[in-house]
Amino acid sequence: MSENATAETLNLTKKGMETREKLLRAAEKVFGKKGYYETSIVNITQEAGVGQGTFYNYFQSKKEVFDALIQMYSRELRFKIKEEMKDAENHEDAQRKGFQAFFRWVKDYPELYSIVQQAVVVDKDLYRWYYDKLASGFLKSLSLGVEDGEFKDINLETVAYCLMSIGQFLGMRWVFWEGQDVPEEVFDAAMTLIFNGIKKT
Amino acid sequence: MSENATAETLNLTKKGMETREKLLRAAEKVFGKKGYYETSIVNITQEAGVGQGTFYNYFQSKKEVFDALIQMYSRELRFKIKEEMKDAENHEDAQRKGFQAFFRWVKDYPELYSIVQQAVVVDKDLYRWYYDKLASGFLKSLSLGVEDGEFKDINLETVAYCLMSIGQFLGMRWVFWEGQDVPEEVFDAAMTLIFNGIKKT
Repeated sequence: MSENATAETLNLTKKGMETREKLLRAAEKVFGKKGYYETSIVNITQEAGVGQGTFYNYFQSKKEVFDALIQMYSRELRFKIKEEMKDAENHEDAQRKGFQAFFRWVKDYPELYSIVQQAVVVDKDLYRWYYDKLASGFLKSLSLGVEDGEFKDINLETVAYCLMSIGQFLGMRWVFWEGQDVPEEVFDAAMTLIFNGIKKT
Repeated sequence: MSENATAETLNLTKKGMETREKLLRAAEKVFGKKGYYETSIVNITQEAGVGQGTFYNYFQSKKEVFDALIQMYSRELRFKIKEEMKDAENHEDAQRKGFQAFFRWVKDYPELYSIVQQAVVVDKDLYRWYYDKLASGFLKSLSLGVEDGEFKDINLETVAYCLMSIGQFLGMRWVFWEGQDVPEEVFDAAMTLIFNGIKKT
């Protein structure tokens, strides 16, 4: 079976890419449901509806498919956020649109939190890489807001981490735990905190 | 061995409590280093320097010691924060003191993040319980600030989640990843964001 599948991969690059994608999406489901440690490669291939040998044409191990998933998440998420921010009226609006894109994306890939959090145990460096990447996206967009005089010139790496963490926890609290959209009043309260603070003036 | 230890527990309550504490601190170390799934009960008893049978006088399983650890963390942390807030000049100062207590506490128990995050996989409900408990502590102290007219009257459960998430990520970024105190300029930037927002006025 492994030989057939190898030939298939060589001859049908487009089909090969589809199979790889199918395996990734299957792994996402199984890792999200059973957790990394309880998941076997057979679980993944069964979910994907492909033979076990096919797996090894695309990934060498369970860990490799896990790494690929986190990298894919990271890329897709940052791309989605960037796209969404393009049409913003100003920098505050851009940040708001970024948060909305993030929450929508969590809704589309509900296993995200579980899988990214699992990296704490599975691979600490990968976990840190994921958040560093996300923070550097925030950092870039915040810098533009400072340059244009819309945002305060305070330690931006910290602001990036604060914004990322707020997105992470509200996404977890509402989308992941409750399976619903982030309520409007919750979104508004978070945006008030970020842009205007909580102190009465 | 198990019988001896049971007798010991019955006769020496104080010593029993010490042994339980020793097992918990040993489990903290081992779970933090190897992760829940790679840890065996023997690893824990060896780290604690007690016989394997002794373990079962205090806990029925590895999972039970994990649960007890998270509950202990939660209790200790919330107590520390509350204590620290007592001497505050105003509500903003109380929140600042709470953050400082939290960061100091993470420094004292550096395995916290890893172990709490592991609950995502080990026990999702326990994970949620931990954050809900922490958020409700924030909620209480924030409510007092609103009552006294110091804080804006916005959705406080959301503000509680935002503050908790900022503490979580900055503690992770600096104390857990870098093994150092949260730098002063980082702390100041986060406090500016929380109390005054990032928008230039």
